[in-house]
Amino acid sequence: MSTLKLILVFIFVFAIVQMTRGDPDILSDYIGPINGIPDGNFFTFTGFRVLVSQKSPPPTFKILKASLVEFPALNGQSVSYAVLEFPAGSINPPHIHPRSSELLFLVQGTLQVGFVDTTNKLFTQNLQTGDLFVFPKGLVHFQHNADANNPALAISAFGSANAGTISFPNTLFNTSIDDTVLALAFKTDVATIQNLKKGFAS
Amino acid sequence: MSTLKLILVFIFVFAIVQMTRGDPDILSDYIGPINGIPDGNFFTFTGFRVLVSQKSPPPTFKILKASLVEFPALNGQSVSYAVLEFPAGSINPPHIHPRSSELLFLVQGTLQVGFVDTTNKLFTQNLQTGDLFVFPKGLVHFQHNADANNPALAISAFGSANAGTISFPNTLFNTSIDDTVLALAFKTDVATIQNLKKGFAS
Amino acid sequence: MSTLKLILVFIFVFAIVQMTRGDPDILSDYIGPINGIPDGNFFTFTGFRVLVSQKSPPPTFKILKASLVEFPALNGQSVSYAVLEFPAGSINPPHIHPRSSELLFLVQGTLQVGFVDTTNKLFTQNLQTGDLFVFPKGLVHFQHNADANNPALAISAFGSANAGTISFPNTLFNTSIDDTVLALAFKTDVATIQNLKKGFAS
Amino acid sequence: MSTLKLILVFIFVFAIVQMTRGDPDILSDYIGPINGIPDGNFFTFTGFRVLVSQKSPPPTFKILKASLVEFPALNGQSVSYAVLEFPAGSINPPHIHPRSSELLFLVQGTLQVGFVDTTNKLFTQNLQTGDLFVFPKGLVHFQHNADANNPALAISAFGSANAGTISFPNTLFNTSIDDTVLALAFKTDVATIQNLKKGFAS
Amino acid sequence: MSTLKLILVFIFVFAIVQMTRGDPDILSDYIGPINGIPDGNFFTFTGFRVLVSQKSPPPTFKILKASLVEFPALNGQSVSYAVLEFPAGSINPPHIHPRSSELLFLVQGTLQVGFVDTTNKLFTQNLQTGDLFVFPKGLVHFQHNADANNPALAISAFGSANAGTISFPNTLFNTSIDDTVLALAFKTDVATIQNLKKGFAS
Amino acid sequence: MSTLKLILVFIFVFAIVQMTRGDPDILSDYIGPINGIPDGNFFTFTGFRVLVSQKSPPPTFKILKASLVEFPALNGQSVSYAVLEFPAGSINPPHIHPRSSELLFLVQGTLQVGFVDTTNKLFTQNLQTGDLFVFPKGLVHFQHNADANNPALAISAFGSANAGTISFPNTLFNTSIDDTVLALAFKTDVATIQNLKKGFAS
Repeated sequence: MSTLKLILVFIFVFAIVQMTRGDPDILSDYIGPINGIPDGNFFTFTGFRVLVSQKSPPPTFKILKASLVEFPALNGQSVSYAVLEFPAGSINPPHIHPRSSELLFLVQGTLQVGFVDTTNKLFTQNLQTGDLFVFPKGLVHFQHNADANNPALAISAFGSANAGTISFPNTLFNTSIDDTVLALAFKTDVATIQNLKKGFAS
Repeated sequence: MSTLKLILVFIFVFAIVQMTRGDPDILSDYIGPINGIPDGNFFTFTGFRVLVSQKSPPPTFKILKASLVEFPALNGQSVSYAVLEFPAGSINPPHIHPRSSELLFLVQGTLQVGFVDTTNKLFTQNLQTGDLFVFPKGLVHFQHNADANNPALAISAFGSANAGTISFPNTLFNTSIDDTVLALAFKTDVATIQNLKKGFAS
Repeated sequence: MSTLKLILVFIFVFAIVQMTRGDPDILSDYIGPINGIPDGNFFTFTGFRVLVSQKSPPPTFKILKASLVEFPALNGQSVSYAVLEFPAGSINPPHIHPRSSELLFLVQGTLQVGFVDTTNKLFTQNLQTGDLFVFPKGLVHFQHNADANNPALAISAFGSANAGTISFPNTLFNTSIDDTVLALAFKTDVATIQNLKKGFAS
Repeated sequence: MSTLKLILVFIFVFAIVQMTRGDPDILSDYIGPINGIPDGNFFTFTGFRVLVSQKSPPPTFKILKASLVEFPALNGQSVSYAVLEFPAGSINPPHIHPRSSELLFLVQGTLQVGFVDTTNKLFTQNLQTGDLFVFPKGLVHFQHNADANNPALAISAFGSANAGTISFPNTLFNTSIDDTVLALAFKTDVATIQNLKKGFAS
Repeated sequence: MSTLKLILVFIFVFAIVQMTRGDPDILSDYIGPINGIPDGNFFTFTGFRVLVSQKSPPPTFKILKASLVEFPALNGQSVSYAVLEFPAGSINPPHIHPRSSELLFLVQGTLQVGFVDTTNKLFTQNLQTGDLFVFPKGLVHFQHNADANNPALAISAFGSANAGTISFPNTLFNTSIDDTVLALAFKTDVATIQNLKKGFAS
Repeated sequence: MSTLKLILVFIFVFAIVQMTRGDPDILSDYIGPINGIPDGNFFTFTGFRVLVSQKSPPPTFKILKASLVEFPALNGQSVSYAVLEFPAGSINPPHIHPRSSELLFLVQGTLQVGFVDTTNKLFTQNLQTGDLFVFPKGLVHFQHNADANNPALAISAFGSANAGTISFPNTLFNTSIDDTVLALAFKTDVATIQNLKKGFAS
């Protein structure tokens, strides 16, 4: 068997193992409300109806979420949504979802998207309306509406009811990490760090 | 502590355990293509662009999928989409997704939806445009566009790259299970079973 | 390497992965009783002694269970039993155990058994006394004592302390799902559905 | 809330968590044979038919297994059987099943059974015909037919297709561990160790 | 493809699956203290400082642990340490850690180490200062400082916050298992068993 | 029950669930070498012996690893080591281990350490020789030898054979992410980004 075929076999099998690992058992039918008995309303979320009646896009980048915080019936169901609204020229800055990949469905406009894998390789794409893009779990990624005139709208699905977010550079500049440590890490001086930090004071 | 509070504590803790179980580790960044090197295109799916240009709804109920079969980059990412198109009066018959719950986002029209839990309790809802409904994992569920005049369109997210489907009554009537066994199971006669089976001959 | 061999390698490796996934860690030695200290009695179940003294089979199909409900020491041990007693000509109707496969050991009589996989393929077998048959996890299956004169007795082991059951057609006909929805699903008329439902009124 | 109630809540919740952990997803319907297409025979095991025709018990303790080695269709199904035949006065020596608990069903005769938990506490029971006893996963346990005149027969179910066995003192005396190390471990002299080892030479 | 290559492929793929299984998700950042708010001190353990100031080795084999019992911040982090101090000629008797492998780093002196796999094969090694040795999860293993004059010191890491220990022959001789059962198991007489038990009376 | 007690119950139970999740089953005893039969040498790693003979610390921060890459026997054992050598004044820059927490044992010198949780809270500590510190899984953390004159040496254990590393700001500045995107993300101008990037050209 050639090396190539060996690799093919490996990829094929590995792929199947991977596919299956992401989907463990549900342990009860659902997790009901803390007070009272669940009914059809409990399994319904109306927080996205606002999108139907919304006349114009928001002035800055905005995320509308349906995770277990906003929609408790998602608890234990390993799935959630976010709607991402990008005014012209705006970005969703580099961040990580530690507990889920993100499957973005671009419903309106165009987006430049990208992620960096753990070998430090960058993958980018210019998405058209109707395209899907998957950001693998746990990797740094971003979205940029490079169109100077038109907004963009995307729906993102997550394979977790609570995907979580660690956002950069906020996690470094909006905490009280020593300027000396950051200067060493960024290979710059303390003054530059202090300048950069100013934009992130909460 | 009252029984009520005992139950509250139980629900609270159980809920947290549940929430976390659905989201195991990703083991590599992604699973690349069998031939060649992945690039941005590999992580992009264009199969839903057809929805952008589509002028009229399909004549019968139709599912457009972006699971690992259609979009291999989803492999190992524990998430997938389906777009459900309901002509007026059509249904998506009772079925089970053994590996995932379904989070339906109703983008157009109205839908009657329902699921049956393992205690045989039915939960139903009449959804309006913009509503979300979650069908818990592994339970029998259905959707019905009861509107006699208008189509409906929904996007469903799954917390699995390959949710799977067992469809009823197809799994009983479109296999060669003995008519006697089915008659005993349906508490009816063999003639009735044979009549019902006619609709499901593939 | 031929395609056949590629498939063989795949099956072999997949098989091993599968084998191991079903058996996670036990996290404590056991889960003791809610009141008091466990002793040897706690780990003993005497509910099957009735089978030793039983003179004649039951008049209708009957299940005797030793799951975590009847035998709390099974909690966390991922195993349980059921004894199935089939009078002549009786069936155990089509059903799914969502959390476990079933390993049936036919101790007395004969049984026709079958299951339908997710590609809608039916597998059947005529079992003799002493035979074992495995019903894979999550698939629709049934047992039929086709012998018009003799009873059958089987012991079934489950790889879960609480295998769960979704029974057909009970889950469709003994809930209040709309007759219209069921008629559409069964490709029949409302009158036929109402007739079928009569047998399942609880 | 009293300490007792606090403990009750803890046990209750812990129990539920435990229950669910033992039963992960099956990832495909089943794992077919390496050569050829599975049919009903593949899911049938006839190796226990010998018990139906067997006239007398075996002369020494004997185990008849239906694990994935003997019955390949069990692969991925997380369940298996063993039939244990005890002549009068015989034992199944102390051992551990690292991947499964054991649910023993005593079909004939009587048995003294016991296990030691990780706090070194011994649990024992004298079982009557028809009794079930559960040996928790990973703990040292044994069975003894103390009846000097009558055989005993038990069916044991395991929540793993391949429960595994580490048998004592075989694992210490039937390997080439240094006599010095064993003498220090058993707090005895090398001569005693060498005497004990003689019984375990394979 | 030759049988050898088939085996290589199998090993390669199996290895990858194995590698990944040991490392599930962390579900929250950390588990804080029961009373109060966590700070840097909560994540710090000072119980090993005693090693810095210690002048001479202990008179008998001694284990210093940093598991979740001693260092609660380890809870949920799947890692722990033990420091093993061996006076000249001492042993750490045969034992099993049911929930973790052990990665021993020999910091001072020499050690004879060994483990027995489930096929009853013994693996041994004479370690020099600076060496690492891995004892696979769930297998019987031991360490022996065979040097009659010099102590040895090792640091062991575990891939569990609570690896657990079942120690032999303590688990058999320091419980009240019947002398008859033990005599049958050790293939010796009751008098020998009673002699051996004397060394383990607690 | 008071709110405080409710929280205590919750923490207690949650803690136990957490503890257990990090430690799944090992599925075979070990994973042997691709070529040949494993013996004691296979389970031994001598790559750290260099530390025994090393006369002086390295000139810059240096990591010596014993993960599955360097020590293949760790495959499937869910544990690994790294030795961290800090010259005076050096840092290990902010980074994430996506698959494991890190348990650091400070063997020589002093260290300032810190991590940021997902609520953006910073936890820091000044460690003395002999101290342990645990960096929870998946969180941004760093170590700084603030002592201008003396080196520091630490041993870190990981609950994974392959913990992985995503290092900041390298993952942002040493890839080809658009300067515009980075300027928007860092809330600064393109010139500042280009200046910062210079330090990270590989």
